[in-house]
Amino acid sequence: MSENKNFTLAVVPGDGIGPEVTTEALKVLDAVAAQHGVTFERTEYDLGAKRWHATGETLPDAELEEIRKHDAILLGAVGDPSVPSGVLERGLLLKLRFTLDHYVNLRPSKIYPSVGSPLADPGTVDFVVVREGTEGPYVGNGGALRVGTPAEIATEVSVNTAYGVERVVRDAFARAQARPRKKLTLVHKNNVLVHAGHLWKRTVDKVAEEFPDITVDYLHVDAATIFLVTDPARFDVIVTDNLFGDIITDLAAAISGGIGLAASGNINPDRTAPSMFEPVHGSAPDIAGQQKADPTAAILSAALLLQHLGLTEAARTIEAAVEADIEERTGAARSTAEIGDAIAKRAAG
Amino acid sequence: MSENKNFTLAVVPGDGIGPEVTTEALKVLDAVAAQHGVTFERTEYDLGAKRWHATGETLPDAELEEIRKHDAILLGAVGDPSVPSGVLERGLLLKLRFTLDHYVNLRPSKIYPSVGSPLADPGTVDFVVVREGTEGPYVGNGGALRVGTPAEIATEVSVNTAYGVERVVRDAFARAQARPRKKLTLVHKNNVLVHAGHLWKRTVDKVAEEFPDITVDYLHVDAATIFLVTDPARFDVIVTDNLFGDIITDLAAAISGGIGLAASGNINPDRTAPSMFEPVHGSAPDIAGQQKADPTAAILSAALLLQHLGLTEAARTIEAAVEADIEERTGAARSTAEIGDAIAKRAAG
Ligand SMILES: CC(C)[C@H](C(=O)O)[C@@H](O)C(=O)O
Ligand SMILES: CC(C)[C@H](C(=O)O)[C@@H](O)C(=O)O
Repeated sequence: MSENKNFTLAVVPGDGIGPEVTTEALKVLDAVAAQHGVTFERTEYDLGAKRWHATGETLPDAELEEIRKHDAILLGAVGDPSVPSGVLERGLLLKLRFTLDHYVNLRPSKIYPSVGSPLADPGTVDFVVVREGTEGPYVGNGGALRVGTPAEIATEVSVNTAYGVERVVRDAFARAQARPRKKLTLVHKNNVLVHAGHLWKRTVDKVAEEFPDITVDYLHVDAATIFLVTDPARFDVIVTDNLFGDIITDLAAAISGGIGLAASGNINPDRTAPSMFEPVHGSAPDIAGQQKADPTAAILSAALLLQHLGLTEAARTIEAAVEADIEERTGAARSTAEIGDAIAKRAAG
Repeated sequence: MSENKNFTLAVVPGDGIGPEVTTEALKVLDAVAAQHGVTFERTEYDLGAKRWHATGETLPDAELEEIRKHDAILLGAVGDPSVPSGVLERGLLLKLRFTLDHYVNLRPSKIYPSVGSPLADPGTVDFVVVREGTEGPYVGNGGALRVGTPAEIATEVSVNTAYGVERVVRDAFARAQARPRKKLTLVHKNNVLVHAGHLWKRTVDKVAEEFPDITVDYLHVDAATIFLVTDPARFDVIVTDNLFGDIITDLAAAISGGIGLAASGNINPDRTAPSMFEPVHGSAPDIAGQQKADPTAAILSAALLLQHLGLTEAARTIEAAVEADIEERTGAARSTAEIGDAIAKRAAG
């Protein structure tokens, strides 16, 4: 794909610190673009809390169809306390992930020696979580009866299909195959959520037959949280459902360099629609607009974007610039823009 | 209730390390009983993997009705790899919790200075998770269609009622009220699971009006895992749903003294049926029968049992014995029985 020299990007800065960190991610993207003979033509989409307050819209279908025409999407963060919880998350972020069939939500975790970890003795940590992105309890299948009365009942339905599980499991096996340790851990809760859990387990067991050199392991999600704290170095590729993936990737960020470094890609591996790249962190409205946010997660998400577009070397350039920046962090406070500038400068060579 | 001098206990040692740790818990219970002028008349129930293999039974209704006649239940652990995942968990453990209406699953976490934590700098950690025990994704409402075919679909339904949520939220507020810090944190995921999440949030906000001196806080479950790692000292009482509670209490155990110390009570606060006490850890079949398991979690669960029966001083005696034992741990390996003996000896005074 690298013969394509002009890539189109849909940019959704979103809420809170989203715009600030997105600015830095784009700055770094520009710094490597020239060097690798590509350009990124950006269209910014004004979506999020402000837009919702002004128009009541979260993501109109026409705009979604515009966004769909791009090569990739860069997203900052979505969510604001002034908007009822769920409105923007479901109506904007999840609408993008679901409509564009981002069934692989990729979340790498790594401990950089100089950043360290809140864990006293983490070992060498370098794993990736392949979180399913289009099913599970996130489908929005549920409802409530007699709301606000003592007889209220509210349900949430986790929907899991062989189609949906098998495709993400295959993706995870392929990733494990390409990594030196060749290990895959399924995380679920199949001793309680027996129907969904057994579908996941059976699927992993079936696909495993095609990957005889992959070591396969299973952990209940509760046990997985323990190992993420006591022995995170044991993990290589983790494959898990949408909700468990949400939970353990925040935990994974916490035990590694923190949520300020955690990048993610919402990937459509079949390329029937653009993939979307965003930091794992949220909109952090308490520090928004103050240049206090660490843009590193957004910048590393831009590297995942390059990787997805086949610009492997450019991706590697950004990662190396981030690593070098991280190695030299002294603990002195830098503004969001200062961190972005420093990384962009290194990335430009 | 302490005028009752002879308490009846139903004992379910269960699988794996369950029988070993239960033996020690009973040993310690006996050590304090005499001293506090009470006796515990035990009936052991042979339930778990062996029974299932022999008879196909997990928990016959007649036996459940027998168990129901006791003052309390002491359980070891349930689950074995030789039994299909879910059979014993759903058919035995969850059947007990649901039928006996254990709607408060109480799980305290504390960092003992001498045991420390895998966290480099945990601070002073002393909180309790009030996990809902009879609703949520644990209700067993779900199913699968076309199992084993490419068209398989599996669902799991989380069921949440105003009735079920309000009673556990009230219990959590009452516990927060009785603690010095008077802080309650609701953990849910109301930006995605909007129906269930909003029911929880509205219920907490409503009950909070009756507890004006309690500080109330809300965290999404993913953010909660971060704070459990980066700032566990911030928590006092956490109230949460059945599945989130399962996940964060294993994490809570991991960041404090480890799963070997984590005790729990499955409590029916209305006392319409006996409450059940069990270590948070599982059956650990890999080390079963080898006297390698730490019985401390089971012993601390026995202390929660005493507390529930109104034997506060006896409970305190066990806790003090455990604390003293923990303070003097040298890291040298002791057998399950040796740890039990040491704690029993201290508890006996
Ligand atoms: C904002 C929220 C809907 C989202 C999620 O739950 O997926 C976030 O937590 C994440 O992990 O990207
Ligand atoms: C064994 C399992 C069914 C159980 C649960 O999920 O509740 C266990 O993990 C626990 O936390 O007590």
